Amino acid sequence: MTIGILLFAHGSRDPNWKRPFESILSQTQAQAAGPVALAFLESMQPDFHEGITSLVASGAQAIRVVPLFLASGSHLRADLPELIAQAKAERPDLDISIATAIGESQVIQESIARYAAGC
Amino acid sequence: MTIGILLFAHGSRDPNWKRPFESILSQTQAQAAGPVALAFLESMQPDFHEGITSLVASGAQAIRVVPLFLASGSHLRADLPELIAQAKAERPDLDISIATAIGESQVIQESIARYAAGC
Repeated sequence: MTIGILLFAHGSRDPNWKRPFESILSQTQAQAAGPVALAFLESMQPDFHEGITSLVASGAQAIRVVPLFLASGSHLRADLPELIAQAKAERPDLDISIATAIGESQVIQESIARYAAGC
Repeated sequence: MTIGILLFAHGSRDPNWKRPFESILSQTQAQAAGPVALAFLESMQPDFHEGITSLVASGAQAIRVVPLFLASGSHLRADLPELIAQAKAERPDLDISIATAIGESQVIQESIARYAAGC
């Protein structure tokens, strides 16, 4: 089964804001077995729906959403489940799962702590 | 010279939002040679001023601010320099530097990409 990865970030009206996320996208694409796309909650394109559509067009039969958020606020607890419910209503056969937000991942926390400590 | 590290995060009205940052704080404290504090831009305590004050009280003679932000928007380009200017006006002898925001650090980007790709 081809699993697509949807990197999901907040978005900003500042066009330069997306650069780190585009860099993470290209680095993830270089490592993932299946298609990878980047989508934004607000203010930037592509949006969640467009991200899902592009992954399906690239052959994804299931999708893993990776929230590029440091903490789980209302965006991840309310907005994202609603977006996923809409996507499932359109594509009932598509399995969509949500990974732990990056900031809540132990391995990412360790990486941030090492960077902050200057190690 | 004792260098204090100030982890600087956005903040949220949701009290649970700060948990990943508190975890990063304790992991950074376990690795850093000097004192480490966590401060928030808005909606949470301690604020930037309180964070600086606690690091100085802990013996910091210089401070490295590590922005726990994934990208540099107006918070890092406008709000943070203003907070630093205020702190320097109060403590002209205190050297305060700003690290690259975590999301713009190559090593953190690599860690996020590995996590996202499921490697």
